[in-house]
Amino acid sequence: MAVYTTVSDDALAAFLSEYDLGVPRSFKGIAEGVENSNYYLETDRGRYILTLFERRADPKDLPYFIDLKRHLAAKSYPCPAPVAGKDGEALRKLEGRPAVIVTFLDGLSPQSPNARQCRSLGAGLARMHAALADFDLRRPNSLGPASWPGLWRGRAETADSLQEGLALRIRDDLKAIAAAKPQSLQIPRGTIHADLFPDNAFFLGDEFTGAIDFYFACSDVLAYDIAVCLNSWAFENGSEYNFSKGAALIAGYESVRPLEQAERNALPVLCLGAAMRFFLTRLVDWTDTPADALVRPKNPLEYADKLAFHRKAVSAGDYGA
Amino acid sequence: MAVYTTVSDDALAAFLSEYDLGVPRSFKGIAEGVENSNYYLETDRGRYILTLFERRADPKDLPYFIDLKRHLAAKSYPCPAPVAGKDGEALRKLEGRPAVIVTFLDGLSPQSPNARQCRSLGAGLARMHAALADFDLRRPNSLGPASWPGLWRGRAETADSLQEGLALRIRDDLKAIAAAKPQSLQIPRGTIHADLFPDNAFFLGDEFTGAIDFYFACSDVLAYDIAVCLNSWAFENGSEYNFSKGAALIAGYESVRPLEQAERNALPVLCLGAAMRFFLTRLVDWTDTPADALVRPKNPLEYADKLAFHRKAVSAGDYGA
Repeated sequence: MAVYTTVSDDALAAFLSEYDLGVPRSFKGIAEGVENSNYYLETDRGRYILTLFERRADPKDLPYFIDLKRHLAAKSYPCPAPVAGKDGEALRKLEGRPAVIVTFLDGLSPQSPNARQCRSLGAGLARMHAALADFDLRRPNSLGPASWPGLWRGRAETADSLQEGLALRIRDDLKAIAAAKPQSLQIPRGTIHADLFPDNAFFLGDEFTGAIDFYFACSDVLAYDIAVCLNSWAFENGSEYNFSKGAALIAGYESVRPLEQAERNALPVLCLGAAMRFFLTRLVDWTDTPADALVRPKNPLEYADKLAFHRKAVSAGDYGA
Repeated sequence: MAVYTTVSDDALAAFLSEYDLGVPRSFKGIAEGVENSNYYLETDRGRYILTLFERRADPKDLPYFIDLKRHLAAKSYPCPAPVAGKDGEALRKLEGRPAVIVTFLDGLSPQSPNARQCRSLGAGLARMHAALADFDLRRPNSLGPASWPGLWRGRAETADSLQEGLALRIRDDLKAIAAAKPQSLQIPRGTIHADLFPDNAFFLGDEFTGAIDFYFACSDVLAYDIAVCLNSWAFENGSEYNFSKGAALIAGYESVRPLEQAERNALPVLCLGAAMRFFLTRLVDWTDTPADALVRPKNPLEYADKLAFHRKAVSAGDYGA
């Protein structure tokens, strides 16, 4: 939630001259996303978001993200549609950074989503998976299970300092996740968002109006996306699972794409894995973020508590499926 | 440049129900202003900015600022117009903070204003002074000359650590400013913006389209506002006075309201005073801002260097007047 790169008057004018968007009428840094700089841009032609990709974004991944959004937008899936310059290219350079203009999406991100919003989100996620079924590009999940032991290495002491005995539990979870790998290879894969938290989803009232921030999208198990959403939408006060919200999210998903039995069976370990991914990246940020950073790191303990819930879950029924 | 206060879904809904603005279609934290939290708010009826006043804003001053903007807007002066709730009140409470919705102003803030923009800004400033000539409310300048010795007290060592011999020069400047007080009592007073930096002014191309952030507005010497603008618009690379830009700014101002001889005579000491005000508040922020604050303090030395320029100026002619 910050603007890292300032755009000079001349750089903006030169950049916009490469588009057919007319004259800028407003340009304001906005607090959207965590990794990149985002600007609200209004021109004679309409409202847009200008994103500058900061250092954490791997430039070689950017064409994948742009093509993915183009693919979704071409299927009328509600997401920011990349705007091409006069030369047909959407991915350009601004202030030395890769940059893209996308269309503005109406809607508000819920801070405390209700069950109706969870249902609508679930359906929106399933529609996204369906719209991406014929998306040809592939990108491995760089924050998938294979990356977790590496993220965890050397952090046991920090974990124990946050919560007594946590390191041992994390080690056991990582073993359980590794043991479930053969199971996960049996279930449907596709292109997933992988980070569809409430602040990456827009609503008008209770109706899902679109998803943003596809910068973790990758090729992975489809139901893992549900697991990410259950972790980020269906818990209250950090670690209390709200059964109604979880059930509504899954029911919404299944109203578009019913889950296979193998997916239902895998739901507890997928939820454990999704909680592990966010626990570990937050643990890394927690220890590695300098005290004077613009963005304060999120407390990893929220996800340690969610891990505790998933450890006890034995079936999809425990999530309301 | 930050969002300090988060607005919950329920609080926003309850707040908006007190207005006739329809349903929200977008709500995003924006990086505008330094002191308060600002949100871009779009509803069925139009585009707005929602401001939550943070701790540094004195609640008893807020009605003055709101009335001032209402007065300007009623005279069609381009500024954010406060939007009244159904009960006629513009100043309300949200998330425990005073809050106001104002109309959205088109335009971009220049990062490196050119001379044509300086001219247009000068004219815009003079039109603001004219529009406020019959504004009845009074507010003393809480960051005026009377406050500077207090801000300076105990900071000589810090000043010297930033620039050798600086403390002595500041003491001499404060004496020169105090000695000029009788002169300043002879020149026209009125309601001034007092903080019209480039990031508080909007332009479409070279045309000034409005001013924002009136939260330092007060009753003071009109030409002091010009001095604030000369300091913030007419210097390049920190401390190099751009004579063309300064001359254009003054000429723009005089195209609406010609300066009296007493104002011209006072210009060097007013510029010294304006530079002193920003030097001192930045010096205070520099030493008092915790290392983990969301907003990084600005380096006071930029204004120490400007003080050096003003110390040598002997007449309005040195500024291009």
